[in-house]
Amino acid sequence: MSDRRLRAVVATPLPDALVQRIRDAEPRLDLVVEQDLLPPMRLPGDHGGDPAFRRSEADERRYRELVDSAEVLYGMPDERSDQLARTIRANPRLAWVQLMAAGGGAQVRKAELTGEELARIRFTTTAGVHAVPLAEWCEFGLLAGFKSLPRLQQQQRDRSWPETRWLMRRLEGSRVLIVGLGAIGRELAKRLAERGVHVAGTSRHAGHVDHVHEVIHPRDLAAEVGGYHGVVVTLPGTDETRHLVSAEVIAAMRDDAVVVNVGRGTVIDQDALIERLAAGRLGFAALDVTDPEPLPADSPLWGLPNVLISPHTAALSDAEDELIAELFARNATRWLDGEPLINVVNTHEFY
Amino acid sequence: MSDRRLRAVVATPLPDALVQRIRDAEPRLDLVVEQDLLPPMRLPGDHGGDPAFRRSEADERRYRELVDSAEVLYGMPDERSDQLARTIRANPRLAWVQLMAAGGGAQVRKAELTGEELARIRFTTTAGVHAVPLAEWCEFGLLAGFKSLPRLQQQQRDRSWPETRWLMRRLEGSRVLIVGLGAIGRELAKRLAERGVHVAGTSRHAGHVDHVHEVIHPRDLAAEVGGYHGVVVTLPGTDETRHLVSAEVIAAMRDDAVVVNVGRGTVIDQDALIERLAAGRLGFAALDVTDPEPLPADSPLWGLPNVLISPHTAALSDAEDELIAELFARNATRWLDGEPLINVVNTHEFY
Repeated sequence: MSDRRLRAVVATPLPDALVQRIRDAEPRLDLVVEQDLLPPMRLPGDHGGDPAFRRSEADERRYRELVDSAEVLYGMPDERSDQLARTIRANPRLAWVQLMAAGGGAQVRKAELTGEELARIRFTTTAGVHAVPLAEWCEFGLLAGFKSLPRLQQQQRDRSWPETRWLMRRLEGSRVLIVGLGAIGRELAKRLAERGVHVAGTSRHAGHVDHVHEVIHPRDLAAEVGGYHGVVVTLPGTDETRHLVSAEVIAAMRDDAVVVNVGRGTVIDQDALIERLAAGRLGFAALDVTDPEPLPADSPLWGLPNVLISPHTAALSDAEDELIAELFARNATRWLDGEPLINVVNTHEFY
Repeated sequence: MSDRRLRAVVATPLPDALVQRIRDAEPRLDLVVEQDLLPPMRLPGDHGGDPAFRRSEADERRYRELVDSAEVLYGMPDERSDQLARTIRANPRLAWVQLMAAGGGAQVRKAELTGEELARIRFTTTAGVHAVPLAEWCEFGLLAGFKSLPRLQQQQRDRSWPETRWLMRRLEGSRVLIVGLGAIGRELAKRLAERGVHVAGTSRHAGHVDHVHEVIHPRDLAAEVGGYHGVVVTLPGTDETRHLVSAEVIAAMRDDAVVVNVGRGTVIDQDALIERLAAGRLGFAALDVTDPEPLPADSPLWGLPNVLISPHTAALSDAEDELIAELFARNATRWLDGEPLINVVNTHEFY
């Protein structure tokens, strides 16, 4: 263990109990927080804090001075990419920023940093923190499709107990394709494999992934997707992933396929998806993300009986703040020990 | 291995492929089937077969003679308890009946057999065959409650993407009480424990049960139920289980508790449940069974937004027939080897 120390400044809301938790976990960290300079959280995971919060001019100066004194930032100042760029330029000692978002790459891209700045600073995301609630939501979406939620609800509206029994589908023994084997995809793969599901996943890199029975290259999606009862999208929104689940891929799906999206709405060609769902030629879609967000009131998605929409809430959980604090403490230890950080942003493709 | 043989007669529909599967698995079994005497199945698990099927008088005689020649029956004749009683009286060689139902005890009780007859014959159920699809449905019901299905669907009807984010609940870290630790309850306990759930279960016998962190006596339900976010009923309908989840137990539940029932509707005091749900003082109820069934069109259950009803379809699956055939072959081997059978009906309490 080196006797180096590290000065970290808390730039976004963090409850006192979690400040203490981080200090206890890594005593070599000088974790500086001035709670009166930070907005209150309205609910767990509210990293931007109450928008009604305002600092006096004097406090704003104090806040910036504090932020600009950091070697490490816990959160972007006020969760704003422009403020991230400002402090990076003001503070040559800054070396690492812990972002609050799982897909923090997009925030870094938005800061429009120079190549030199991108090379100087390590950015880490909270990828993985949301993996458990998102995997739970994916299981919920798959089960809603496999257990025929729309049929159940139609019967319930009709107050009708059918005379003839009908079959629900089992998850066990089915085949599910996970588009994207990041933290969420791998967590889901493990869960589905435990349930007796044949799990495939897409990756640009060949090779073994735990709990994934087959790894498929994204370019082979259209050729392979027809063999799967469930298709779960976990990918972030980047130039590379835009409409990866294209009209061609959607056309190649089984008529009873269940589609789940917890990545970004832009990964799916939403118009093609809507057309296929409206024609009754897809089993079910459970979408926690749409394109755009908020989904406009006149989108046909809202009215489709074989669609379940959640308004980008699947990742949130009351455990989020605690898990981020723990992840940060673990990363601080790795930094101080000269080990590679967890969840470093790829500053070429920004994910 | 003894060189005894065992004559089994197929009394309910069984596809040829599964007849062959059983013969291959246990060559000492003389498995007799005459397909022209059996009604066709309308869908998997349709053990009663097409009700339009009729035998000629001659065929009916042949069918009875065949059935009455068995040492073992695969299914009750025509799935009728009165026909079970008839063949038991006609055939002193009959020693074992493999029932098709998981809760076959009720069918045996309905046959109104004498104590001597009950002592002479072993009855085995298909308990466990339905454990996987039922456990999947329990997970679906719990997730529908934890992920706020009614709220999602209200927003969808309103075409409204809320400005303020809200929290879904995580299954991980929650506490679920399973009422009844039979095959279904134990399968669910394993699954929930794997998901990071604190699992309790009720049993009249103290002692360790795999994946169950706490075993609670049914008489302590009212005292203990308040500590659980989810309550899952898996018990069969017997005199002992009637209204075990009483008005008092329901009153002691958390206001956000999620109730799931895949056992029998009679286990829950349904009027008390409806009252509490209608008052908004329960989170959610997912009910695959009701009291009575079919649920009458004027039942208030149909109209409650925090209720999901499935018409006793959760146990059905396209794998059922295969699993029953495998179970029967395993039991035949045990019988021939003088080992105790799996799933023997308790002929005192009839479960």
